[in-house]
Amino acid sequence: MEGVLTPEIWIAVAEKTGIEALRRTTRDEPDYDVLMRGRLALLAEHGLRLSDIQAVIGSLRPLDGALEFVRGLRAMAPLVILSDTFEQFARPLLAQLEWPTLLCHRLVVEDDRVVDYRLRLPDQKRAAVKAFKALNYRVIAGGDSYNDTAMLTEADIGYLFKAPAKVRAEFPGFAAFDDHPAFLEAIREAVDAG
Amino acid sequence: MEGVLTPEIWIAVAEKTGIEALRRTTRDEPDYDVLMRGRLALLAEHGLRLSDIQAVIGSLRPLDGALEFVRGLRAMAPLVILSDTFEQFARPLLAQLEWPTLLCHRLVVEDDRVVDYRLRLPDQKRAAVKAFKALNYRVIAGGDSYNDTAMLTEADIGYLFKAPAKVRAEFPGFAAFDDHPAFLEAIREAVDAG
Repeated sequence: MEGVLTPEIWIAVAEKTGIEALRRTTRDEPDYDVLMRGRLALLAEHGLRLSDIQAVIGSLRPLDGALEFVRGLRAMAPLVILSDTFEQFARPLLAQLEWPTLLCHRLVVEDDRVVDYRLRLPDQKRAAVKAFKALNYRVIAGGDSYNDTAMLTEADIGYLFKAPAKVRAEFPGFAAFDDHPAFLEAIREAVDAG
Repeated sequence: MEGVLTPEIWIAVAEKTGIEALRRTTRDEPDYDVLMRGRLALLAEHGLRLSDIQAVIGSLRPLDGALEFVRGLRAMAPLVILSDTFEQFARPLLAQLEWPTLLCHRLVVEDDRVVDYRLRLPDQKRAAVKAFKALNYRVIAGGDSYNDTAMLTEADIGYLFKAPAKVRAEFPGFAAFDDHPAFLEAIREAVDAG
């Protein structure tokens, strides 16, 4: 979702709150638990509550071209978004994307404070791809970052989208795209060929 | 999908074409393969092509209240429609429901003639529920007919919607609803309690 359809939520929160350390993403820190524990500690340290973060997220818009991309995909094949974001964060952005199905994690919230997080499963994006393959689907996956590469490898076809140079360099086997219309066209060809 | 969100597609085709035998559904014939082989034979016998059937389906509208029901569900939790319909049939109805994710079967089409069908999997609705549970989701399922009861039993919570009296009588363990707002409210309570 983030980086492909929407801005990076944590970077937006970092910008609006001025907490620079919240700018780190899975592009910078491949160990997701290390990244998340650091984020939760920063929120507590700065007294930021869930409603503060949701207010920031509510001011974000999907990336240019993302809604048309999502509409194009949905008319073509079943679409499921696999993300390492959290249900509580995703909602205002999902509404703007006309509510595609999103499988992701959940925050543990007490009195508007984010006290913990619950991963859906370890390596849930790959697990979801395996599950859809077991349901006899041919899976075409796209992602932008380190936390997508296991999913892209598991999928029948994997693509990178707006991936940083070092991700492309480490995973040269995935065709890489940078704009939504060209990416949609590649997916259409892959669907038609299946 | 059919019976909960949309009219029964085969019944609509029977009405528009006058082929009475196409009125049979899973409500009448619990063995799905027997039902489908009969339907394909009738299509061939009457020279009906895929485009003829799609023209009929394009004239159908979702059930009253179905779009608001789908919108309410999607704002609440990830929604996946599990159906024994076919991708080629579902598209014009999915568009009217704002493209919810649908997992279903496929027809084999040659020169606009429906020559065969491919089940996604045997018992695919139940298999999909099992898969989502294995992804650590608590699954709330609703359906109207015999081909839903394995799915409803597999789900954490199962509901009947507009189910015929004999289905309700055989499966008294599932709470039964007949209008979308009351059904949505029951689902909301189940989600909140989870």
